[in-house]
Amino acid sequence: MLYQYPDMPKYVFHYFNGKGLGEPVRLLLAFGDEGFEDHRVAFNDWPEFKPKTPFGQMPLLEFDGKQYAQSLSLARYLGKKYGLAGESLEDALEIDQNVDLINDLRAKAAIASYEKDEAVKEKKYAEFNKDVFPNLLEKLNEIITKNNGHIALGKLTWGDFVFAGMFDYIKHLLVVPDLEKKYPAFQKVVDAVYTIPKVKTYADAVGPTEF
Amino acid sequence: MLYQYPDMPKYVFHYFNGKGLGEPVRLLLAFGDEGFEDHRVAFNDWPEFKPKTPFGQMPLLEFDGKQYAQSLSLARYLGKKYGLAGESLEDALEIDQNVDLINDLRAKAAIASYEKDEAVKEKKYAEFNKDVFPNLLEKLNEIITKNNGHIALGKLTWGDFVFAGMFDYIKHLLVVPDLEKKYPAFQKVVDAVYTIPKVKTYADAVGPTEF
Repeated sequence: MLYQYPDMPKYVFHYFNGKGLGEPVRLLLAFGDEGFEDHRVAFNDWPEFKPKTPFGQMPLLEFDGKQYAQSLSLARYLGKKYGLAGESLEDALEIDQNVDLINDLRAKAAIASYEKDEAVKEKKYAEFNKDVFPNLLEKLNEIITKNNGHIALGKLTWGDFVFAGMFDYIKHLLVVPDLEKKYPAFQKVVDAVYTIPKVKTYADAVGPTEF
Repeated sequence: MLYQYPDMPKYVFHYFNGKGLGEPVRLLLAFGDEGFEDHRVAFNDWPEFKPKTPFGQMPLLEFDGKQYAQSLSLARYLGKKYGLAGESLEDALEIDQNVDLINDLRAKAAIASYEKDEAVKEKKYAEFNKDVFPNLLEKLNEIITKNNGHIALGKLTWGDFVFAGMFDYIKHLLVVPDLEKKYPAFQKVVDAVYTIPKVKTYADAVGPTEF
């Protein structure tokens, strides 16, 4: 493990105590094995911490005296650093494109899930369950099947970490807790990441957490 | 200009006849000057074209016998290709992160703008105009001011192309047609891109178009 100073980890990662948008970054940090402090912010503490963050947003990754935000940007950065981003510009584009499709699904489901008006929420789920989610899920299934149980390039990339890290959260947002039963290919991506020894060590140490 | 075959441009770009999510890619293609067919799909023709696209989505870029989707992924790809993505992994992260903040604003505004129920729509705008848009706009203004009229790295990057290309669309979604009056820094980014001779030639040739 690399340390900037004795006992100070290379990275400090700030996010809520759940998987959500943060877990892909944590899984990549575990994979990279440079050392990271896994700072989990209680919901009650967020209002006080928020103004101290550069964009009022988490996930937030600190290293080398700088702070960076945005889940997918952080995952892409670590993916490139750890050799999980393909060889060519076109490889990188294929990963980015497929990750954006995962994010389309996540973002659309979030619109329904975070709707505060119960009647509107019900209507959104009804609409998206008919016109949006099935298409996106089918496309994702097609992509993963074509890529031999991976998100892109037919092999392990940081896109797999995004999917695996967000899968519980996406299932929560879709309100389909057993989504992998309908799409066994989805479980393959999750397993491809969580069976990596360094990732497994991290996940076992954390134990079961919220989505 | 490079051609794969005589009279066949290197790229074919498919998007609606408007700026929307497509213009950043068009501006980058104009900048790169390798030649592109600017295929503008009429709304009426979209239902027929949609199933022929790999993800049922536009923007769509075709080259070297392959098709790629996703506006920001395409912009990042072309940005890297044309030397607009910084030097280091951390440079790329800074651009990506700031582009994601632009996209957060765009996506949130789209939720309100595309809401079909008029009462819900009004409520969403009221809520976002109070709790969401001002914060994001202030952060963006701060970033652009700190970066000397650019989105990142204090110089021209593909992030500027994303912002400049989407600016009319974002103003439309926010229903603030003169947003640059409140934030003159925003206009600086737009001007930095549209005054580039190759971009200007493209924009002049297209003439005024929809957001």
